[in-house]
Amino acid sequence: MHILRRTRQAAIALVSTLAMGQAHSFDFDTGNAPAEVIIPTIIPVILEDVSPGASDATLVLRNTTLVTNAWFDAIAPYHPTAVGVYTQHAHRLSEPTDSEKNTAIFYASYQVMKSLHPNRMATWDAMMNSVGLDPADNSTDPNTPVGLGNLAGMNVVMNRENDGMNQLGNIAADGSTATYHRVPYRDYTGYKPKNTAYDLKHPSRWQPAIVSSGNGLFKVQQFVTPQLKNVTPYSYNNPQKFHAPKPWNSFVQNWGGYVGQAQAVLDASANLTEQQKLKAEFFDNKFRSLGFSALQAAGVNQLSLMDFVHLDFLVNLAAFDTAIAIWQEKYRHDAVRPFSAIAHIWGDSPVTSWGGPGMGTVNDMPANQWKSYMNVADHPEYPSASASFCAAHALAAREFLGNDNLLWHIPIPAGHSVVEPGLTPAADTEIVFNTWTEFEQDCGESRVWGGVHFPDAVPAGQAIGHEIGALAYDFVMDHIQGTP
Amino acid sequence: MHILRRTRQAAIALVSTLAMGQAHSFDFDTGNAPAEVIIPTIIPVILEDVSPGASDATLVLRNTTLVTNAWFDAIAPYHPTAVGVYTQHAHRLSEPTDSEKNTAIFYASYQVMKSLHPNRMATWDAMMNSVGLDPADNSTDPNTPVGLGNLAGMNVVMNRENDGMNQLGNIAADGSTATYHRVPYRDYTGYKPKNTAYDLKHPSRWQPAIVSSGNGLFKVQQFVTPQLKNVTPYSYNNPQKFHAPKPWNSFVQNWGGYVGQAQAVLDASANLTEQQKLKAEFFDNKFRSLGFSALQAAGVNQLSLMDFVHLDFLVNLAAFDTAIAIWQEKYRHDAVRPFSAIAHIWGDSPVTSWGGPGMGTVNDMPANQWKSYMNVADHPEYPSASASFCAAHALAAREFLGNDNLLWHIPIPAGHSVVEPGLTPAADTEIVFNTWTEFEQDCGESRVWGGVHFPDAVPAGQAIGHEIGALAYDFVMDHIQGTP
Repeated sequence: MHILRRTRQAAIALVSTLAMGQAHSFDFDTGNAPAEVIIPTIIPVILEDVSPGASDATLVLRNTTLVTNAWFDAIAPYHPTAVGVYTQHAHRLSEPTDSEKNTAIFYASYQVMKSLHPNRMATWDAMMNSVGLDPADNSTDPNTPVGLGNLAGMNVVMNRENDGMNQLGNIAADGSTATYHRVPYRDYTGYKPKNTAYDLKHPSRWQPAIVSSGNGLFKVQQFVTPQLKNVTPYSYNNPQKFHAPKPWNSFVQNWGGYVGQAQAVLDASANLTEQQKLKAEFFDNKFRSLGFSALQAAGVNQLSLMDFVHLDFLVNLAAFDTAIAIWQEKYRHDAVRPFSAIAHIWGDSPVTSWGGPGMGTVNDMPANQWKSYMNVADHPEYPSASASFCAAHALAAREFLGNDNLLWHIPIPAGHSVVEPGLTPAADTEIVFNTWTEFEQDCGESRVWGGVHFPDAVPAGQAIGHEIGALAYDFVMDHIQGTP
Repeated sequence: MHILRRTRQAAIALVSTLAMGQAHSFDFDTGNAPAEVIIPTIIPVILEDVSPGASDATLVLRNTTLVTNAWFDAIAPYHPTAVGVYTQHAHRLSEPTDSEKNTAIFYASYQVMKSLHPNRMATWDAMMNSVGLDPADNSTDPNTPVGLGNLAGMNVVMNRENDGMNQLGNIAADGSTATYHRVPYRDYTGYKPKNTAYDLKHPSRWQPAIVSSGNGLFKVQQFVTPQLKNVTPYSYNNPQKFHAPKPWNSFVQNWGGYVGQAQAVLDASANLTEQQKLKAEFFDNKFRSLGFSALQAAGVNQLSLMDFVHLDFLVNLAAFDTAIAIWQEKYRHDAVRPFSAIAHIWGDSPVTSWGGPGMGTVNDMPANQWKSYMNVADHPEYPSASASFCAAHALAAREFLGNDNLLWHIPIPAGHSVVEPGLTPAADTEIVFNTWTEFEQDCGESRVWGGVHFPDAVPAGQAIGHEIGALAYDFVMDHIQGTP
């Protein structure tokens, strides 16, 4: 029961303040190190260094998958049957408290975060010091929790630093070895958009958007980490068996379909409800939606620390392995986003749609000035990555928990919208997901409400997410049962 | 003498901490509001909202020119002969102290900053409150310093909000009126780079660079505010009378010249001295170099508050008016940057150059992995904007001050390099500019040392800077003498 309360409190604390960064009086015997200390320390770093809106799922997911992998491996020896993915040890006698597990989890996290964010050493050191652990303890003695944690983390790092993501920047743009000026995460597949940000010569294909901070500096998007399609998955060998059907309505030669799906996005924009706006924002932030749903599930299902770690690794891995296949399909189809198609079809003719923050629905929006409610992400449109992640995550969670209950009520105070601050919602309200099924369905549809996807991209993403979510569940269960 | 000390102290405080934001016990009678309070308040906002490295000169210069314009106009009535640019009033009797001038300057600044950075109202309100002024005092009574300040600031805003820079975003990308989703400072000239970031099809022309924060998100540069060429200048009517000669060495058809100037940049890179590295960094930061040089001059020449405001408006205006003509020429020549030409000429063959932070000079750098010591700015190469600004600024300062003395010693503690932190300089050192002439010469050459310009771009920029610096001096002197 204390885990239930603790986890809920931690989730609330996370939502209300992401910058706490320090734990006070962490209880190793009864506490949950991931929920109480580690996640609150990592999130601000990712928000600041990687993805200010937590919307850049590929980079966020690889961070969370590697660190939850390290937790899983670090405490597998304390489980009766589990074996780690990259580290295997004999099983320990079950401990009366979670103290040793929490210690192992801290050291495992420390090793992984050192690798992922070496410029943030002061933060990782402070995290360890804040709970009375010595960050300089490099022990690899498998008979101690410190050693188990360090070994688990080091092995994740060793196996993942060169997993195809180019984390170290040691692959140059042309695929050769980068001897100088290494650029972490640089594309080496040679992806080039077919369209420039200035001309839509290929109206079926992706066009990078021009983005601005609002104060005069403009940049053009670049497809984020196209090489994710080449990254080694956990739960299957080769993403080439996963295929999304061709997005026929994105082919400009199919003019009726091309116009029809663009009109569907405009209709969604023109009819945006307050609930849809809030859900679109919620699912755009991968921490608030995907990340905290595992904490919510831990509370509802009163999960032990061990079970929480198993669930959290499972759902992150499910979405991460899905992302690899989705990136292959995004790269292959290279499909146009709604903002490009709408401008292409209607030019400067007026369309009816959401008119901008506080403007409601307007009927004289020049199509080439149209903007989606959510900011458009920096990758081709089809299939929807978010829809696929939510589907994989929800399916894996349902399988693991044995039920569909999510029972999640998220309060949104008046005016706390990100896009329409001070205006939306008009009064204090909440968004509710009673089941994982509702969660994944709203997640998918919210990408159309937000104006960043055509309708066809949603089921296409969900189908691959469900396939891979099931594989991820099998993979993790095999490791829990000791039969990988 | 107290102004001298104060101004020097303020300059030191600014260099050492840019985030103070609050003045303590500002003395209206003897203080210098710009140096002690206003500049330290504005700089952190610009660094955070506009230009993290203060290298985006077009946006920074328009901010500083508009606010110094407002100071000039606000206190012109306290000068025996001066008249403002946008506000003209009868002259007041000379005051025994600077109290009224400082008050007028605060209100003038407040009006301008409200317009330039409306999302920072809390900062501007706090600035006023910190010195005991009421930010809500909207008086426009020209018989009071509050009214003179407000009127001066409001008139600058009224005359400059639609000066061609598209500050309000009310011009759409195609030049029509933007009815919805206004994007401040958006280009409306239709500039499109001839090259993509991925292919150099036109080796004589500018190629946007791919830039990264280092943690996985990449973007492609967009020419910053091409519309600056259309902005209304202060000191001349039409920039079309200013012309830089064609950059023949950037024409790939002139292969010998094309290779020769690229080799010159490589040679500079291979022979970088510690002093050159530090000066390249210094001149890249427009606050540290251009901005603080006026404070230095105020100290050396023991300028009164009135004279400091005249000098500061003059040097900012000189650089701003120069930027308009330089942007016209950058737009017209649209010339290739060194990083593109070096990769184009030598491909993956090894070149000898600086090898990256702490690497010194290496002789096996694949040319297509070459990187300049300074980050390359987001606009075409020719002419050098920095060289032109320093030339205009230095010439105007020399004319105004009647001498060439700068006598500026800037201490650089060991390891305080931006590019090579912890390594450069090896020991505490200083960079020295005894004269404005040295300042502008080193400024120009530092763009070649930094690897972001070919040699020809430097004199081309300086020539236009000198022409316009002289016009700016005439313009400001005419306003000081009351004969505009």
